[in-house]
Amino acid sequence: MRDFDEFNITQAVVDRFGDTPDPRLKAVMTSLVWHVHDFIRDVDLSFDEWRSGVDVLTRTGHPCHDTRQEFILLSATLGVSILVDAINHRMPEGATETTVLGPFYVEEAPISELGADISGGLDGEPLFVSGWVRSADGAPLAGATVDVWHADEDGHYDIQQLDALGGLAGRAQFKTDAEGRFHFWSITPTPYPIPEDGPVGEMLKATARHPNRPAHVHFMIAAPGQETLITHVFADGSPWLDSDAVFGVKNSLVVPFVPCPAGEAPDGRRMGRTYNRLAYDFGLKPQRPAA
Amino acid sequence: MRDFDEFNITQAVVDRFGDTPDPRLKAVMTSLVWHVHDFIRDVDLSFDEWRSGVDVLTRTGHPCHDTRQEFILLSATLGVSILVDAINHRMPEGATETTVLGPFYVEEAPISELGADISGGLDGEPLFVSGWVRSADGAPLAGATVDVWHADEDGHYDIQQLDALGGLAGRAQFKTDAEGRFHFWSITPTPYPIPEDGPVGEMLKATARHPNRPAHVHFMIAAPGQETLITHVFADGSPWLDSDAVFGVKNSLVVPFVPCPAGEAPDGRRMGRTYNRLAYDFGLKPQRPAA
Repeated sequence: MRDFDEFNITQAVVDRFGDTPDPRLKAVMTSLVWHVHDFIRDVDLSFDEWRSGVDVLTRTGHPCHDTRQEFILLSATLGVSILVDAINHRMPEGATETTVLGPFYVEEAPISELGADISGGLDGEPLFVSGWVRSADGAPLAGATVDVWHADEDGHYDIQQLDALGGLAGRAQFKTDAEGRFHFWSITPTPYPIPEDGPVGEMLKATARHPNRPAHVHFMIAAPGQETLITHVFADGSPWLDSDAVFGVKNSLVVPFVPCPAGEAPDGRRMGRTYNRLAYDFGLKPQRPAA
Repeated sequence: MRDFDEFNITQAVVDRFGDTPDPRLKAVMTSLVWHVHDFIRDVDLSFDEWRSGVDVLTRTGHPCHDTRQEFILLSATLGVSILVDAINHRMPEGATETTVLGPFYVEEAPISELGADISGGLDGEPLFVSGWVRSADGAPLAGATVDVWHADEDGHYDIQQLDALGGLAGRAQFKTDAEGRFHFWSITPTPYPIPEDGPVGEMLKATARHPNRPAHVHFMIAAPGQETLITHVFADGSPWLDSDAVFGVKNSLVVPFVPCPAGEAPDGRRMGRTYNRLAYDFGLKPQRPAA
């Protein structure tokens, strides 16, 4: 076929995907083509705007490497990440709500002993974190993997300052004990702006949007037979809870980071200064049987 | 606002763009968010599929540099480029039809004298190209810039083999003479597959689509007061005219590349071997007055 115009091109492209062997891929490509074409027709996209779009996507791809993921930022700031999260995690009673993964997750973080201090040179007020991991029906999950990561008091993650730190910090994996419990020490994260030096920052500036996220600690919790939980716990009272730049806040994930006086901490440690305490109990959702 | 779900997130993201100073940018972002979210809801995108999408976009961004533009390939193979072209170039009588820019255009190609041989070391059967450039009402356009580029007999462009060639070839800019005419020599391009070693190639393979384009010469023609024309001239009889991988073929752009015997060529050159002749007359569209 030749002489495609703005009216017949979409069906022609969809037809071209007609021999796709994988039916799911065919369905996704078909829907993608219709929605992208409808967007272009809807806004009557100009040639210069198309070139700008190619340029933005190209520049979004360039800064992506092991410790920077600009496309995840773009997805997050367009509400795409939380929408995908919502679609995929309709929650049963007893299961902790999920939220976005974010661009600062690192696979295979170091494994630490329960009670360890993982602050690793990050500055900030000490934070004692503890919790239980249970299945949705309330049974404790022993040996569950609790992967945590968070920013420092300046709002930066370890992988944004690896040269200065000399390694990972504010990040570790723990195994829950026989009762499904975990605890560790770190420093208290603060609210922070997402990275603004790339195309996503340009987009936020051009659209008069602020880049800030409320203070939070990331958790990824995995246990056999359970769906892996990806979530944050947010600090109650933090600024930006009601206008998180990536739309990630859920009320059930907001708890006080409780200020505690110097003295004996819950794990028996003698603290010579004030610290904060974060306690959260997580419920995992049973894994869906394989299709 | 907190606790976004799959039903309220889209309006919330659109509201976040409410203070965008530029009304056009606001309209484009609003439409983009609605269409992208509708796509995700439509296919019930899984978390793993979202991660694959981020990975594909990232890997599409990585190979983009001065001589490789994978996002333009993606746009072309999804029919986006020809749709943008169709929307922006509704043609008056007398104006040449447009088609996609493609990823192999180079800004500021060398300027050559009329009659020059621009093959510059590319192998292939000689090709004599000539034509007129006129305004849509038929007036010859003297001094118009005729920017041309094409593949070699193996289907490769100069910028895909710069190391071997040592410079640009099969590519030049000419100025039309006082009667709006131009002519030059080069070699005859052949059909070719678009680059298949990146994510676009993976997409074509996974969807059982062929990557081929029919033989063509690219033209970009500019003259004061006229809209710049971006088009190809295709070789009649070439394979893939009816299934161009980028949907670019229009019947009005297909002409014979006429085989000619050895002997005196139209410009007086003595040819010791057979060659082909491409003749095409271009009509430019008047520039729209600035808004």
